[in-house]
Amino acid sequence: MPKIIRFHETGGADVLRVEDLPLTEPGEGEVRLKVEAIGLNRAEVMFREGQYLESPELPSRLGYEASGIIDAVGPGAHGVHIGDRISTVPSFAIGKYGVYGESAIVPAYAVASYPENLSAVEGTAIWMQYMTAFGALIDFGRLKKEDAVLITAASSSVGLAASQITKATGALAIATTRGGDKKQFLLDAGADHVIVTDEQDLAETVVTLTSGNGANFIFDPVGGPLLEKLADAAATGATIFEYGALSSEPTPFPLFSSLAKGLTVRGYTLLEIARDPEAFVRGKSYVYDGLQSGALKPIIDRTFPLEAIADAHRYMESNQQKGKIVVTV
Amino acid sequence: MPKIIRFHETGGADVLRVEDLPLTEPGEGEVRLKVEAIGLNRAEVMFREGQYLESPELPSRLGYEASGIIDAVGPGAHGVHIGDRISTVPSFAIGKYGVYGESAIVPAYAVASYPENLSAVEGTAIWMQYMTAFGALIDFGRLKKEDAVLITAASSSVGLAASQITKATGALAIATTRGGDKKQFLLDAGADHVIVTDEQDLAETVVTLTSGNGANFIFDPVGGPLLEKLADAAATGATIFEYGALSSEPTPFPLFSSLAKGLTVRGYTLLEIARDPEAFVRGKSYVYDGLQSGALKPIIDRTFPLEAIADAHRYMESNQQKGKIVVTV
Repeated sequence: MPKIIRFHETGGADVLRVEDLPLTEPGEGEVRLKVEAIGLNRAEVMFREGQYLESPELPSRLGYEASGIIDAVGPGAHGVHIGDRISTVPSFAIGKYGVYGESAIVPAYAVASYPENLSAVEGTAIWMQYMTAFGALIDFGRLKKEDAVLITAASSSVGLAASQITKATGALAIATTRGGDKKQFLLDAGADHVIVTDEQDLAETVVTLTSGNGANFIFDPVGGPLLEKLADAAATGATIFEYGALSSEPTPFPLFSSLAKGLTVRGYTLLEIARDPEAFVRGKSYVYDGLQSGALKPIIDRTFPLEAIADAHRYMESNQQKGKIVVTV
Repeated sequence: MPKIIRFHETGGADVLRVEDLPLTEPGEGEVRLKVEAIGLNRAEVMFREGQYLESPELPSRLGYEASGIIDAVGPGAHGVHIGDRISTVPSFAIGKYGVYGESAIVPAYAVASYPENLSAVEGTAIWMQYMTAFGALIDFGRLKKEDAVLITAASSSVGLAASQITKATGALAIATTRGGDKKQFLLDAGADHVIVTDEQDLAETVVTLTSGNGANFIFDPVGGPLLEKLADAAATGATIFEYGALSSEPTPFPLFSSLAKGLTVRGYTLLEIARDPEAFVRGKSYVYDGLQSGALKPIIDRTFPLEAIADAHRYMESNQQKGKIVVTV
């Protein structure tokens, strides 16, 4: 029987259990995956805590990203074959289709092959981060090389992906990090400038770095009181993408800066791209090409074995990571 | 000497003084207007109070909208002639070029002729309201006939203009009003539905009226705690235009609804259109054509003589008006 991660109550990392469960068969339009690696996401920590957009039905599986080999294909699942080397694109209910385990069933539309030059560990560290950044900056934002992009929580996998996509476009990437310890890492990872927010004034520094203009795009998963500072750092006509809610504090809307500068504050999640078949195809193609050419390259922070899933979650919650945390199976 | 309205200190309507001041000559790129009528705007109340985006240099003139006849043309002012019957398009510093008075000097680029079927009183009641609604709904929003538009503060001149533009596009116009007394007026003015917010649940009613979808566009000058209700009334992928800050309370950003629905909250003012020469031309043409065809028709609430300017401001602040308040000169 495959080992599957589930939780029977919401809470801290300890609620995650490694259970032996019967192998199940894919249903209509689904495929089964023999999992090789699992990419961890902040969404799963929030889901485990009962703090996510979706609520778990207990006991619940969890997990958005896995790479592996298809070992069963359900009826009506087109374009997929047993033996395909794929990874999952997060575009399904996290509880129903959670991929943490040795075996996972997912909708056939939510799998995609990844370039051969990537390992399984890298292959599970691409879709959430690059599709999320692609959707905001490229598909909605139409990022141009003249633009300046401010990226908060820049050491996260999605933040790093946003830096790489910004650089691939030829635009200016300004990353933020709280303390100085990740500064060199972010510069090495491709950011043009890194603002250490514990030491530097965010808005003032952005305005200086952009010759007085401010940032044309801001890509932020934090929200909370930070949004007002981001509005101060924004250029006239800028778009601020809010793609998460990491702050536990309320988020005041910067009404006066928004009026004065014509700012757009855009709530955004990857699901918007995943639910739009044409955008989904554009995104898969953009990311695949970028990975193949080397313009995009996933940065793996650390791997954990499946049995240490609770440790892997605790590590994510510690905010020490620089890049993707991956569980190997 | 022409009578000119100025204020020597910020504050209530009493600070407005009718003063006899020397006739001045238009400078480079400017024209002088013999004023026939003045359209009042909420912005002028806020400017008078020192609460506007711009701060007055005292003593200060004020006023954005006037209609009249050009009686002097400065050097380098092209495309304008003495005797032209025009009205002003608010696209200049309200303090420097305030139009309240018998004579006003404005930049030549900020005047436009209006159709002959309109009186001077109507001619001063078009640009702020229609260009503001045009910029948001048509130029940025690309409003389609399948869309539902929620219009708050719908009895204001800009709110009424938004209803007319919504109907001219064939889309659904849902107006809100606090009490029941303006409901019939709003229906007569063209709204498809009117929600009395003192009696009805805003979000629930909008969702019902749109067969469960919510509003695709929301056009709101209020902000404050209302924004969260507007987000609840919004459709997936909706845009909420915030074009004013009438609420004196802070405006919480509806982060979770924005993430779940992919909402755009867009700070917006007419200046964005006015500063973009191509959009400005598109807007003037759209409004002129609509006025000429009768699809757009300014609604005048009441006129006051110039000497009663303080009464006119007090009346605006009472929120009784249904349409434009105009001062005749």
